[in-house]
Amino acid sequence: MPSKCCGSLFQFVDRLVGGNSAMGILRDAGKCYRPVADVDLGPNSDEFYILADVKAPRVAGLLVKIFVWILESWILGPIVVYFLKKDNKVQRLVSNAVIQEPPLFVPDHDNQDVAEQSVSLVKPNLSPAERVQEAAGCLPASLESSLHGSPCQFRRWTIRDFARAYRSGETTPLAVAKRFLAAVKESEDPKLQMAFFINFSPDDIIRQAEESAQRFQIGAPISIMDGILVAIKDEIDCLPYPTTGGTTWLHKSRPCIDDASCVRQLRSCGAILVGKTNMHELGAGTSGINPHYGATRNPCDINKVSGGSSSGSAAVVCAGLCPVALGVDGGGSVRMPAALCGVVGFKPTSSRLSNSGVLPLNWTVGMPGILATTVEDALLTYAAICSDPPNRPTLLQPSLNFPLLNSAQPLTDIKLAKSSKWFNDSTIDVRNCCDRAISMLCKQYGWKVLDVTVPEIEEMRLAHYVTIGSECTASLAPHLSKLDRAEIGWDARVALSVYGSFTSKDYLNAQRIRNRQTQFHREIFKKADVIVTPTTGVTAYPLLSDALSTGELDYINGAALVRYSIAGNFLGLPAITVMVGYDTGGLPIGLQFIGRPWSEATLLHLAFAMQTICIKSYKKPQVFYNLLETK
Amino acid sequence: MPSKCCGSLFQFVDRLVGGNSAMGILRDAGKCYRPVADVDLGPNSDEFYILADVKAPRVAGLLVKIFVWILESWILGPIVVYFLKKDNKVQRLVSNAVIQEPPLFVPDHDNQDVAEQSVSLVKPNLSPAERVQEAAGCLPASLESSLHGSPCQFRRWTIRDFARAYRSGETTPLAVAKRFLAAVKESEDPKLQMAFFINFSPDDIIRQAEESAQRFQIGAPISIMDGILVAIKDEIDCLPYPTTGGTTWLHKSRPCIDDASCVRQLRSCGAILVGKTNMHELGAGTSGINPHYGATRNPCDINKVSGGSSSGSAAVVCAGLCPVALGVDGGGSVRMPAALCGVVGFKPTSSRLSNSGVLPLNWTVGMPGILATTVEDALLTYAAICSDPPNRPTLLQPSLNFPLLNSAQPLTDIKLAKSSKWFNDSTIDVRNCCDRAISMLCKQYGWKVLDVTVPEIEEMRLAHYVTIGSECTASLAPHLSKLDRAEIGWDARVALSVYGSFTSKDYLNAQRIRNRQTQFHREIFKKADVIVTPTTGVTAYPLLSDALSTGELDYINGAALVRYSIAGNFLGLPAITVMVGYDTGGLPIGLQFIGRPWSEATLLHLAFAMQTICIKSYKKPQVFYNLLETK
Repeated sequence: MPSKCCGSLFQFVDRLVGGNSAMGILRDAGKCYRPVADVDLGPNSDEFYILADVKAPRVAGLLVKIFVWILESWILGPIVVYFLKKDNKVQRLVSNAVIQEPPLFVPDHDNQDVAEQSVSLVKPNLSPAERVQEAAGCLPASLESSLHGSPCQFRRWTIRDFARAYRSGETTPLAVAKRFLAAVKESEDPKLQMAFFINFSPDDIIRQAEESAQRFQIGAPISIMDGILVAIKDEIDCLPYPTTGGTTWLHKSRPCIDDASCVRQLRSCGAILVGKTNMHELGAGTSGINPHYGATRNPCDINKVSGGSSSGSAAVVCAGLCPVALGVDGGGSVRMPAALCGVVGFKPTSSRLSNSGVLPLNWTVGMPGILATTVEDALLTYAAICSDPPNRPTLLQPSLNFPLLNSAQPLTDIKLAKSSKWFNDSTIDVRNCCDRAISMLCKQYGWKVLDVTVPEIEEMRLAHYVTIGSECTASLAPHLSKLDRAEIGWDARVALSVYGSFTSKDYLNAQRIRNRQTQFHREIFKKADVIVTPTTGVTAYPLLSDALSTGELDYINGAALVRYSIAGNFLGLPAITVMVGYDTGGLPIGLQFIGRPWSEATLLHLAFAMQTICIKSYKKPQVFYNLLETK
Repeated sequence: MPSKCCGSLFQFVDRLVGGNSAMGILRDAGKCYRPVADVDLGPNSDEFYILADVKAPRVAGLLVKIFVWILESWILGPIVVYFLKKDNKVQRLVSNAVIQEPPLFVPDHDNQDVAEQSVSLVKPNLSPAERVQEAAGCLPASLESSLHGSPCQFRRWTIRDFARAYRSGETTPLAVAKRFLAAVKESEDPKLQMAFFINFSPDDIIRQAEESAQRFQIGAPISIMDGILVAIKDEIDCLPYPTTGGTTWLHKSRPCIDDASCVRQLRSCGAILVGKTNMHELGAGTSGINPHYGATRNPCDINKVSGGSSSGSAAVVCAGLCPVALGVDGGGSVRMPAALCGVVGFKPTSSRLSNSGVLPLNWTVGMPGILATTVEDALLTYAAICSDPPNRPTLLQPSLNFPLLNSAQPLTDIKLAKSSKWFNDSTIDVRNCCDRAISMLCKQYGWKVLDVTVPEIEEMRLAHYVTIGSECTASLAPHLSKLDRAEIGWDARVALSVYGSFTSKDYLNAQRIRNRQTQFHREIFKKADVIVTPTTGVTAYPLLSDALSTGELDYINGAALVRYSIAGNFLGLPAITVMVGYDTGGLPIGLQFIGRPWSEATLLHLAFAMQTICIKSYKKPQVFYNLLETK
């Protein structure tokens, strides 16, 4: 059984090759970390940046199956995992590391209000619909009005576009829902096979649309989100669907009995929930290739991956099927596919949103996130799902601010921290495009770039990997123990094998690295408002046919994808990605802002400013559905 | 090397005997825990109480050495540990358990003030000496004045006895210090070999005493604690001594460079720090038998153990050498030896005291605690060391209350929760004596016993064991990796072997049990003010000569000792033990009150009431030194 196969011979190998034996020289001595106070976070820091040097060739097809067979075998498997972990520095940087700091088990924020410019302070205890209306009051008159001049070459319909069309009688939620169903059908055509959804019920969608249309008929829509189509990642409970987590089995042992908190709130605003989007199986990968439900193709180029794990949610927004969708972000899983598909991806501060009804695949790094056409739509959706009920009633929640995007005064005196070695550990197209965008931003608004060093990036990535892997193992063990392993996809089986190899010492050392990074980031945020990075180190890469049924093991691209995502999850910091341009192949490039805890308003402000500069250059994706007939 | 030996073949065995093989039937299926809300906490609950059924015979001497040899061997060791863990239900109740609740990694208190009767609210930002003076104002005129009638048969000198004698000129701190040194010398006599101390410096003690004496000469003592002798467990930094943790090596790789926070505060009150008390090596056992520094003998009966791990601190208070001593309580390590030696043991709410300068042998369960002659002395010492600096500045600390022990009005309407099956899982002497004491308390003050069920006691003990073992492994790994294992005592090597066998899944499941218990206790404290239990399931047991150099493995007595201690550590609840009588062999029996978070004042009140009833029956220990000549 997988759970037993995961927790297996790893420590045997550890002693065999690492003990006092002749093979002891193979054991990686642990890195001795400097005390936090001694680490220089300035631009000329002597902290060594570990360039990505992942030791694992891309593997797909039959080779993945053979690899799984090896990993799940008694003796050979753990030996292979041992060397994988050794080559990829898990042992040196986490397991055997010498760290002075105590563990910090969950993101630690001081729960105090941050001073933010140009915000609307929201009254407590508003209903989701009331919050959405408050947020709507923060928006500029129209998207175009914010652009000062020439129109966009291409832009997707936003929540407000739909809302206006419903109110003007130009169209109805029912008409839009029918176009949606037709478009999804088209996307399933053998020539396309976009694999956007795992589950959707035409009957349930039409029923909701009819109810919404009736509210408009009697002139009583609930909120600006009434009749808005919203897709939900299949990791979040949403009636009447099972929650598969991208598997063929998890919903059988964990039935979905209610809407998740964030879904319930969207529903209460009148949103139409259009089904469960495709995802990487168990969220255990970043390509969005799912062996059971198909590989979600990137609407910008259907021969490229969409990124994951919230692949379907990013792709449906990109393809115009919904103005917004929900994803779950445990290790960049919202921001990475958003960047690869060229949409906005927003992950608020941990505990700003409720995790209730989200599959508990981990406990300390994951939370819901928003995929949206524009920053405005991200704000409206955020307004709907934030803070109700408070996720941690025993801690004081800081006040809820919405950014005044309609303010004539842009934010002043903003400092963007940039860690160059890290920033530049990306393809030349990515870093040049992101650099150009930052220059434009600084030129336009007078903001400043502050050169810093964010240390121990690779260390944090591995510590996060140990954490999410350990938590996934503990969470799934009861399910896996009853399961025939053949029900699990091949690449997920590889992930589960590695996940199950961690000891409690590995886990605790990873939490000590979490403590260090929390302190580093706290220092940086004393001087800077946000940290700016590319969202991913690479753009969408080819979806090869040999990976379709087995998935693929591509740790090089995988590491490049998650390179800038980890602080958002491991430290619980809010982060947002906006498309800032294209690579030479025409594929989207995302820029990310990482903020201090509770600074969602500032992040949305900055993202809005960035979008204002870049949106005019956006191009129509290869696959795009126009659900709103223009006048 | 031990660290490598600890983390070893356990998972191999797990697969070997637990996998899909013919031996799979040996695998323990996990307990499927009910959701917390479905657990009945009432007196007639159908929750099954797992009677202690530890499967491990007492082992000492050569057999321990052979056992270590087996445990540290490649193949056989993990197989033996596997079956030890299986027989002792770690697998069934923790590793393979099915638990719905997410992990809770640290004690979780709501940081709100609790309503308490008859307290003095202490102003914030007082110095330790000022706090001590505030606390002194809460005491009755004298110990005798609180007893209403016949005097004690025997009582130890308290802080106030010394303070009065210093102020009246009857004696001086220097004279007392000299008597102390003579007494310690006597206790080291080959006929006694009490093994109270690991380290003490006559020069340093005399120097402090001279300074204190000078302050009295000029009429300027710092506080009521000026000139008071205080001993410190050798797990807490105290200059000029190394901090050995009961080992021969830890201080070499972790030098002591400053006083711990609690020691610094005591010093600032004028206390004389008289050296580092003996302890169970690494705190990894409960007998107080240390192979390097000797087995601390119980002053009540020198052929009995003192209990551990703060063995020396309990014994010196018992023997009259100090009115108070500091210990560290990670799994009852203050309260158990206090009970066995017949003194007061007090562990406040986690995070009420600073852990700064305490050996980080674990991070989430241990904290300093107080061993004292009387409840009054526990209060004075608590006043000195609490809250300065705050241990967790990011959380609001509740107000600091001191109990008004001088109030003519005893507390009214107190409800004592008692879980009978658990309470009665102790020797007949222990339970009868504790029951009698509770009856007297209720009769005297009109308090009520509330029958409840505290569920999953054995589950919590094992979850705590997995936690403290995992944290100890991660904490010590860098030290152990450089160490010749022969430097470690035999019984500590056994503990380290088991400690190193836990996976990250085990650790996470243990934290899910922590979450459950936190919720159970929160419910019970809605109805009751405290939970009342015996402090230990057994009284001091024989110290056998075969254990002196190897330690002993006596998991049956060990489990009986810690049976009532775990909630204090795993849930961070405050707890106090008071001697309430003797068993038929004349050995002390302790009664424990476990309080809701931050209810130290109530606990001290209750303990004071209990002491008032019982102190008259206290008898002089077999070994006792009178440091204060009576008039």
